[in-house]
Amino acid sequence: MAFRSKLRIRFGDIDRAGIVYYPRFMHYFHVALEEFFADELGIEYHTVVDTHRIGLPTVHLESDFSRPFSYGDNIEVEVRVRKLGRTSVTFGYRVFEESEDDPRIVGHNVTVCLDMDNFKKMDIPDWLRQLFEKQLGGPLE
Amino acid sequence: MAFRSKLRIRFGDIDRAGIVYYPRFMHYFHVALEEFFADELGIEYHTVVDTHRIGLPTVHLESDFSRPFSYGDNIEVEVRVRKLGRTSVTFGYRVFEESEDDPRIVGHNVTVCLDMDNFKKMDIPDWLRQLFEKQLGGPLE
Amino acid sequence: MAFRSKLRIRFGDIDRAGIVYYPRFMHYFHVALEEFFADELGIEYHTVVDTHRIGLPTVHLESDFSRPFSYGDNIEVEVRVRKLGRTSVTFGYRVFEESEDDPRIVGHNVTVCLDMDNFKKMDIPDWLRQLFEKQLGGPLE
Amino acid sequence: MAFRSKLRIRFGDIDRAGIVYYPRFMHYFHVALEEFFADELGIEYHTVVDTHRIGLPTVHLESDFSRPFSYGDNIEVEVRVRKLGRTSVTFGYRVFEESEDDPRIVGHNVTVCLDMDNFKKMDIPDWLRQLFEKQLGGPLE
Repeated sequence: MAFRSKLRIRFGDIDRAGIVYYPRFMHYFHVALEEFFADELGIEYHTVVDTHRIGLPTVHLESDFSRPFSYGDNIEVEVRVRKLGRTSVTFGYRVFEESEDDPRIVGHNVTVCLDMDNFKKMDIPDWLRQLFEKQLGGPLE
Repeated sequence: MAFRSKLRIRFGDIDRAGIVYYPRFMHYFHVALEEFFADELGIEYHTVVDTHRIGLPTVHLESDFSRPFSYGDNIEVEVRVRKLGRTSVTFGYRVFEESEDDPRIVGHNVTVCLDMDNFKKMDIPDWLRQLFEKQLGGPLE
Repeated sequence: MAFRSKLRIRFGDIDRAGIVYYPRFMHYFHVALEEFFADELGIEYHTVVDTHRIGLPTVHLESDFSRPFSYGDNIEVEVRVRKLGRTSVTFGYRVFEESEDDPRIVGHNVTVCLDMDNFKKMDIPDWLRQLFEKQLGGPLE
Repeated sequence: MAFRSKLRIRFGDIDRAGIVYYPRFMHYFHVALEEFFADELGIEYHTVVDTHRIGLPTVHLESDFSRPFSYGDNIEVEVRVRKLGRTSVTFGYRVFEESEDDPRIVGHNVTVCLDMDNFKKMDIPDWLRQLFEKQLGGPLE
């Protein structure tokens, strides 16, 4: 099974309509990505950014939302490496209420590898590419 | 020219990489949408939500980011009505640094009209449809 | 030892100065409070709000910050019930880097018990008062 | 009259209780401070941070909240320089609904002047002290 990060919907994540404010899901994606780096890739995201001086800004994002989330729902954010280019990596996300089989949100973000010292695009370094490659493939549960 | 909302990038909008944290743009889109309702459609968004009990949750979002924004950049978020369905309305967004001709971000969000009292999809009411229709069409600058 | 909630500082919590944006700590306090309700009081905060229709808005807050937090710091937020009035409850907070003995932040928030159906102040109901009372007292480590 | 920044309460600023999530006010304070720098002191805050490499992190904050704000309220955040030390400056804040005479929130934040290149406390430089001094004093409306 793919990596899932268990998150809690917070009191302050709710909007005037009484459901999770949609930009928060983009934040949840990033939080889950940070957990994915620590737990699956074996390197803390802050080490990637602060020590290796590599950034992964989003250049394309796309998501479908089929049902809203409310305060009190228990949320699981699945993270996968969907595609690896020379300079880009695509992360796939699915968001589940923990008791449900079908995701309520399905999306992906394309990111590019950036040298944080000059903000220029760079090839994904080999050590990082190898970590991503181990996560690629497998059935699309 | 299409409606543009002038926003300021805030000190707290910046992330560890020194650029605007990408989920903030989804928030900027919503802020610009609220301004669009007030200034172009002639009705405050809180009136739509709290008085008319109509919500417009996002069911699909999609954006391309070509260049990051930094603290101190002056930002303009263009809002358009791109498509009108029976129950759905698609808003198009483009984000400019105010001194530039080309947008750094181009995206759109598909929203559905929801009865806030039962969270069921509903046809866009005529009075609101007419407001949206006036904003439709025109060249894609 | 008092209850502590382990939190992760997130990539997006950092501000332009490269440290945690100070309003985020007020959010961390609330997140830790939600954990405190679930883990120590034995009732989920969303149940208090949504089922019992009780709110606990902050009417006074006060905090001292002795050292900033950076991305990658592991954070622990201690929560205590400091004082119980007829309608008010004061929560004390201390924020530690997990490897340190001295807190970097010490603060407290006074909240009042509100009937969420009319937004009027109300006496803390007995069942909730008893939960708070069990947490009162003890040495100030 | 003291400087006031007109802000809009946003759809996403509302919490599960239907009022502005209290950490947002700390964000509003900072937003108003950024406007205060630009409009009253005559220097953009990002210039202070990015060009002069000076930070003003909060070391103490304190606020009283007498009435909540809802979506649709028009908000004005007053900013004043309350006190000037050798290395510290205290900003006073009051938050009004624009049609009301009495503030709903009264608070202040003590900040210290920091050299952003080594994160050490420093004396407020003369040019900045002079800007702050012009804002000091006057009756407490």
